[in-house]
Order: sequence, then C-alpha cells, then structure tokens
Amino acid sequence: MAVYTDIAEDELDELLRQYNVGDALSLKGIAEGVENSNFLLHTDVGSYILTLYEKRVNKDDLPFFLGLMEHLAKNDFVSPSPILTKQGNSLTEVADRPAAIIEFLEGRSIKRITPGHCALLGDSLAKLHLAAEDFDLKRPNALSIGSWRPLFESCLVDKSHPALKVAEIKEIEEELTCLEKNWPTSLPLGVIHADLFPDNIFFLSEQVSGVIDYYFACNDFLAYDIAICLNAWCFESDASFNITKARKLLSGYRAIRDISEAELAALPYLCRGAALRFYLTRLYDWINQIDGALVKPKNPLEYLKKLRFLKDVETVAAYGIE
Amino acid sequence: MAVYTDIAEDELDELLRQYNVGDALSLKGIAEGVENSNFLLHTDVGSYILTLYEKRVNKDDLPFFLGLMEHLAKNDFVSPSPILTKQGNSLTEVADRPAAIIEFLEGRSIKRITPGHCALLGDSLAKLHLAAEDFDLKRPNALSIGSWRPLFESCLVDKSHPALKVAEIKEIEEELTCLEKNWPTSLPLGVIHADLFPDNIFFLSEQVSGVIDYYFACNDFLAYDIAICLNAWCFESDASFNITKARKLLSGYRAIRDISEAELAALPYLCRGAALRFYLTRLYDWINQIDGALVKPKNPLEYLKKLRFLKDVETVAAYGIE
Repeated sequence: MAVYTDIAEDELDELLRQYNVGDALSLKGIAEGVENSNFLLHTDVGSYILTLYEKRVNKDDLPFFLGLMEHLAKNDFVSPSPILTKQGNSLTEVADRPAAIIEFLEGRSIKRITPGHCALLGDSLAKLHLAAEDFDLKRPNALSIGSWRPLFESCLVDKSHPALKVAEIKEIEEELTCLEKNWPTSLPLGVIHADLFPDNIFFLSEQVSGVIDYYFACNDFLAYDIAICLNAWCFESDASFNITKARKLLSGYRAIRDISEAELAALPYLCRGAALRFYLTRLYDWINQIDGALVKPKNPLEYLKKLRFLKDVETVAAYGIE
Repeated sequence: MAVYTDIAEDELDELLRQYNVGDALSLKGIAEGVENSNFLLHTDVGSYILTLYEKRVNKDDLPFFLGLMEHLAKNDFVSPSPILTKQGNSLTEVADRPAAIIEFLEGRSIKRITPGHCALLGDSLAKLHLAAEDFDLKRPNALSIGSWRPLFESCLVDKSHPALKVAEIKEIEEELTCLEKNWPTSLPLGVIHADLFPDNIFFLSEQVSGVIDYYFACNDFLAYDIAICLNAWCFESDASFNITKARKLLSGYRAIRDISEAELAALPYLCRGAALRFYLTRLYDWINQIDGALVKPKNPLEYLKKLRFLKDVETVAAYGIE
C-alpha cells in the first residue's frame, strides 16, 4: 500500500504517446503494492494499472516479472497482461523510474476468507504452476533459506531495538538452525508466485478474476508456494489454525496438480520456513522503516505466532489430509 | 491522502443494494482526501467515488457538504454530484461510518501550475461563488479568525516540541494580534470552498473538469476564498511569489464576478490570515500526528515562509492589479 512518486501531467502524456491506449482521462494513486507506486489510469480506451518501480525492485528482474505475466496471460491464466508499446516493449520509463502499463482486472480482494475461497485459491495456485511450466526465464529465490541467516543478522545490528527481545532472538536462532538442517533438497521445482496473500487475488461472482503482484515470483519448490498460502490464508486473526480452510486449499490444488508424497512429507518444514521468511522480512521492515512511505509496516509478531504453532506440526495430517 | 478503513465485501454489497448503481466490480483505496477514506468504485454501470467519513469530520456537517455539492451540480457547476439512494438520500453508512457514493469526474490535478491554470482557477472560483448564491443551508467557518488563537494555544501545550522555536512563537503571536485588530468586518459574504488547492481541481483538455472536496466549505467572506487560492497557487516552490499567476487568477475571477474596492483593499490582510490559518492547522497536525494514517502531515514551514512574504504586502498592487 504505497504511493511514492508523483507524475506530472506532461510526463504522463509523453508516456502514453508510446502506447496505443488512448489519452489520459484520470490517474489516481492507489493503495496497492508495497514495493511500487501504483496508479489506476482511465483513458478514453479503458482502465489500466500504471506501475512505477521504486528502488527496492531490482531493475534486472523486471523482464522476468513482466515476461511471466505475459506468459501466464497467454496461457489463459488470470494474470493481468502487460500492455506493449508501439515498439513492442512492456518496460518503459516515467518520472525517472522504470514503469509498465498493465491490464486492469476487475474483481475484489477478500477480507473475510471462507473455506470456499481457500478452495478457489488452491485451484488458481495449481493452475499458475502449470501455466508457468514452459516459461523460459529463470530467477532464483532471493528470499529462500540461504538468505534468512544474513537477514536475521542484519536485524540484530542494534540489539537494543524494542522489536527484539532476548528470548525471541534465541528462539529464531534455534529455528534457523533446525530448518537449515532439515530443509528439503529434491522436490519438484518450478515458477512460484511466492507472495500469494489475500490482497493479491481478486474474486468476482465467486470466481477468481485475477492474480496480481508477481514481484516476488521466482524458481523454487512448487510446494513452498503451497506452504506460503497455507500460512497466509488458513490462520484466523487470533493465530488459531483453521484445518477446514487448509483441507480445502490442498484439495483445490490437488484437483489440478497432484501433490507428491515427498511434497506432502516436506510441507511441515516448508510451512515453518515460509513463516520464518515472512517473520524476518517484516522484522527487517519494522526496524528499517522507510521515510515517506505511505505504508505502515506489518507487525512481524503475527508470523512469530504462526511459527510457534507450526513448530508442533509433524505431519500433513495437521492440515486436514492424509 | 488517506485510506483508513477497510470495507468487507458483504458490507459493500449491502451498501450498493441501497442504490441504483449496479454491482461492484472493483474497489480501490485511493490516495485522495486527508480527512476521509476514499475509494474508486467500478460497477457494471460506471465509476464512482465511495467516501467514508472518518472521525475528524463532524457528522452534523455532512448535509451541508453533500447538499452543497448537489446544489452546485444542479446549477451546472463542475462539482461531482452525490448519488441518491433508492430512498432519495445522499448520506448512508458502511463499516460503521457515515458514507456517500459520489459521481466520478474524469480529469487530472496539476503538478506544474502555469499562469493559464490560474486563470481557469479564477474563473471556476467565481462560478462556484455565483452557483452557491441561493444555497440555503448555512455553516459558519470553524477555521476563521476566532479559532486561530485557541488553535495556536493548543499547539503550545508542549513548548519543548521541536516544531516550535521560540522566535516563531513570538512572531505568530504578533501576527495573530495584528490580524485580530485589522480583520475586515463587512465584505460580501457567501459560500466559500475554503480549501481550493491544486489537488482539488481536475483539468481535462485544458478546461476545468471538476472541483472536488467540499469538506471545508462554509459561509465567510468570498474574498477570503480568493486569498486562500492566491496563497495556494501563486507561490513557487522556493516561496517566491509569482505575480503573473496572481494577476491571471484575479482577472479570471473578475471576468465572472466583480471584486469590489473594499474586497481588493482587504486582500492583503485576508491573504495573511489565510496563510496563518494553514500554518496553524499544519502545525497542529504536525504536532499531533494520527497513528495509522497513510498520510504524512504537510510541513507548516511552507506557510510560515508565505506569511513572511505577505506581511510586507500593503496593497493589491503586489498581486499585479490596480
């Protein structure tokens, strides 16, 4: 939820002249996307999202992200498609920032998640994994297990920071060591969304109408994406785990793509890892708040509570399936 | 620029059932309006603004604000019109807050102001004053001169606050006393917008396509509205005063509504007062930042600099007219 950069009217007009999208009627900064500036653009042709990539996004990754969206849309997945310029490019520049104009998908993200939404999520996640199968660009997961220890250490530079309590440092340290020892090494790989939180799925008429925000997408274990979703969608606000939602998510997924025995067996550790990853990035953002950002960092504590539940899970039976 | 309140999907559906605006397709929180939560709503019928009134807005004032918008729109002024429910009401409720659905006006607010924009602003401001002439609700200006001393005193509760330097306290104190002594008492009265900053005017095809945000509108001297606009539109970012812009603004206004000799003579004090009003409210907001607001308070210093320029202005000749 961020709008960082203002766009002057002549800059916008100049940008739009590179495209076949008509003339600008209005441009509203929207509270969507944490890493970028996002605008809802109305032109005399239609509605679009204009995204400006702020400095937290590595420019070298943009061809992967935009190429993936284009690939998914071409393969009938509900990803918004980047609009190409008259020259055939998806990546342009405005207000001194890399920018892209992207198809606007109608639909609403859901605040009150039901098991039915989790079933639709599972279905979409599996379809995404299959639709991305023959995408030929690669991007390693910069936020996978190898990054967690350095990230944690960078959070500890100022040990007196109120976000860090001594007991939690020890707890996280032990969890890191445990995960480094037990992290799976040979599971099916593919392109994962890696951030498929409720904000990033639109529903319309009880169907998924859009999956957005591919700016963490990368190559990793497909089952790690399932783990991220289990953590993001199946806990209630009091940190209790809703096994019905988990079962629906997994069965929705399995109806489209099978989950192997090895993937099922690895899920408990993958969920712990996914919880630790979001705990650590939120902790880092909490400690290093960006000045001028129109976004309040998310409290890392939510993911510490989830992690504490997940540490006691030994098999996928806890997620409602055998 | 604020989005404070989330709306659950069933709450929105229930709200829309009260209107003839079709079914919701999407709802995006937009970075517009400081006091309220604003959303751009797409339905299968069209685009609308959904505004939720947060606690800083007095609910008793809403009939004035919404009635004024409706009155202006009916009198062919470019105000968005509140959409009426099937029962004929402009004011409803959602997410435990008073709410209104308002016509969406295309157009873009301007970042790079030219003298031409100032001429169009003057034209629109005068048209607003005339269109509101026979609006029959009244609302005193809660932020006029009588409020400034108590507001300033409430800023001084903690004199050690870094926003307050000793010299500035003395300077503001003297300005307050001077304005209280010299404030005009008998100028033409009417409904004023009272917050017609560049954010609140949309331009399209080099015409004004919309004037929005009536949530400071009230009854006061019409010329005080001109003063607010001179301050907001005619200073450059280095606090230098652009006399060409001022002349264009005033001549644009006068082409529609005459400015009397008494109004012209009062403008220097009105401008100082308008600068002090925005300095004080910004100072107050700077000292009392709202937790959770997605808005960075505006620096009051901008208006102190303007005030220092305006104190040396004795006649309207400084604004480029005789």
